[in-house]
Amino acid sequence: MTDIAPFHVMALLARAKELEAAGRSIIHMEIGEPDFPTAEPIVAAGQRALAAGHTRYTAAAGLPELRQTISDHYRERYGIEIPAQRILITPGASGALQLATAALINPGDRVLLADPGYPCNRHFVRLVEGRATGVPVGPETGYQLTAELVERHWDEQTTAVLLASPANPTGTAIAPEALAAIVATIEARGGRLIMDEIYHGLIYGAPVQTALAYSDQVLVVNSFSKYYGMTGWRLGWLVAPEDLVGTVEKLAQNLFLAASTPAQHAALAAFTPAAAAIFEARRREFLARRDFLLPALRELGFRIPVTPDGAFYLYADCGRFTDDSHGFALRLLEETGVAITPGIDFGGHLPHRHVRFAYTNAIPQLAEGVERLRRAL
Amino acid sequence: MTDIAPFHVMALLARAKELEAAGRSIIHMEIGEPDFPTAEPIVAAGQRALAAGHTRYTAAAGLPELRQTISDHYRERYGIEIPAQRILITPGASGALQLATAALINPGDRVLLADPGYPCNRHFVRLVEGRATGVPVGPETGYQLTAELVERHWDEQTTAVLLASPANPTGTAIAPEALAAIVATIEARGGRLIMDEIYHGLIYGAPVQTALAYSDQVLVVNSFSKYYGMTGWRLGWLVAPEDLVGTVEKLAQNLFLAASTPAQHAALAAFTPAAAAIFEARRREFLARRDFLLPALRELGFRIPVTPDGAFYLYADCGRFTDDSHGFALRLLEETGVAITPGIDFGGHLPHRHVRFAYTNAIPQLAEGVERLRRAL
Repeated sequence: MTDIAPFHVMALLARAKELEAAGRSIIHMEIGEPDFPTAEPIVAAGQRALAAGHTRYTAAAGLPELRQTISDHYRERYGIEIPAQRILITPGASGALQLATAALINPGDRVLLADPGYPCNRHFVRLVEGRATGVPVGPETGYQLTAELVERHWDEQTTAVLLASPANPTGTAIAPEALAAIVATIEARGGRLIMDEIYHGLIYGAPVQTALAYSDQVLVVNSFSKYYGMTGWRLGWLVAPEDLVGTVEKLAQNLFLAASTPAQHAALAAFTPAAAAIFEARRREFLARRDFLLPALRELGFRIPVTPDGAFYLYADCGRFTDDSHGFALRLLEETGVAITPGIDFGGHLPHRHVRFAYTNAIPQLAEGVERLRRAL
Repeated sequence: MTDIAPFHVMALLARAKELEAAGRSIIHMEIGEPDFPTAEPIVAAGQRALAAGHTRYTAAAGLPELRQTISDHYRERYGIEIPAQRILITPGASGALQLATAALINPGDRVLLADPGYPCNRHFVRLVEGRATGVPVGPETGYQLTAELVERHWDEQTTAVLLASPANPTGTAIAPEALAAIVATIEARGGRLIMDEIYHGLIYGAPVQTALAYSDQVLVVNSFSKYYGMTGWRLGWLVAPEDLVGTVEKLAQNLFLAASTPAQHAALAAFTPAAAAIFEARRREFLARRDFLLPALRELGFRIPVTPDGAFYLYADCGRFTDDSHGFALRLLEETGVAITPGIDFGGHLPHRHVRFAYTNAIPQLAEGVERLRRAL
């Protein structure tokens, strides 16, 4: 348990709420959750599911119609065939990450990850006594692992690589050809790739391809939370290689029985044209926010050398202002009411010189946040 | 992964569905899920929550109002004070079991459980590299561990005991004074008790007390699935000792972020008088089913030496008919269309001589099932 860190941003968030309760105006740029509510067609489908009495367990692997709908989605969006039988519906991407790590990792196995990266990833590895090895990445590789880095850090104990594209906290994606090279490098060594694609829909122009296009041996984690705007419903999915389907299904039976039934019925509506139009409008809004916030922060003196391709995060070097990003974030909160996330939540590579800004707020609030920062800095 | 067994009943259930699809009438006595839909006040609260836009994450520990309502429930039903701060809302009892086992167990630690018992329990222990040790129990102790059995099986590596009362598959409860003695025995050895109380509301006359009444060091797992009839919503809770609250909260942040938000809002209605009246009517119906099925099965020649105190299961010795309960269950399904669960799903102690009957069907169906068994046996 001592190896599993709490989210440091939680203490900061608690303080932000205290200040708010005391009447202070707080600009929330620390929250990794879209500010939009769940789209109306999905909410309506959830209400209909409840009215129809869909409140009992589904099969552990999920509702057959939803698995098929996701299979169709892979054909339509990516042009690839993924049989529904390889798709398991999970309680959030968290459930999918847990299935993937528990299925692949034995005690002592080494798993390579990008540092900085989403903090839960290394904890899922640690939970099953694996050893998560953060590989320091910087702007020169777009804060992502490359085939060359995988090769350099691979050793006898390494069995898997866990990547995210677009990534949290950096928003950067892996280009299709780079991803193909990574997959080939891992598989040449007999390893497996676990690929987090939960921000795949939130991409602002860069080409992206699912890792499934390059191999049927990768495990892909996805989610209805971020692009589909269903965070609080806790729903995601795992695409497993054929030979692991039985394993992850028995794990799912034992670890969580099944994902939420009302949420699964609601999610069917996420693939309708009405919902797709809403998601596209929201994607454009996030893009507009990125294009507002990125130059504004750069102008203030934050160094953001790589323009993020997706998600809703900017990972900024604050070295011009501080060498203690945690203290810096706390001070900004107290002095300006602007809440941001210190780098320490994302790993051990230069965390003290970095902070994460989330643009999960409308542009007027972001503008107000920038203005307050301008005055303070 | 090879240590984690699939649910054998799933293959049987799949065959039952095949037969049904082919037009056969199947009596389902294998399913561990109430046949009632979620009570109307809870469904209505869920729909209101969706209409009000409650679709974003809650805090990892859950909705403060729901934690407080559960705290009030402990005061009103059990007469004990459990601060809301010690109550964490989880994705089903599964989430609570995972937090409890992950927080307490180090690799190699031994955990004592009753055999027969709920199969997932030993797998949660195995997942974190602990060693689940099933202690064979029989009718002489009501299929439960006793203080004396705990004492006899405790060794240097033992760190915890995981019990359920009422239990699956036997339906038997631990009497209050016996539970107090177990708690005292475990704590005298510096160990912890993880107590599964998910069937606590479904009790048919025997006195029951929560383990929390005897110690503030136990971890209690509970659920909205069985008594509150919210299986498909995936919602439960964990009561943690004060000193473990921080640990389980950071684990929850990392493993599942939070439980379903619509489900948490809906569950608030589970503690209203309208819902309570529905639960009480359902409890009486389950009692009537038990009182029908138990003598009927005994008359057929199944040995059920202990009258179950709660839940909706009868664990029957079928030794008069077979020494291969799995084959027996498959044969009964094919020949009579009656589906039951073979003992092998519940552990290694005499599984081949036992089957589980679930009375999650109305009495007319149960009567038809008994009639078919009578003709076949």
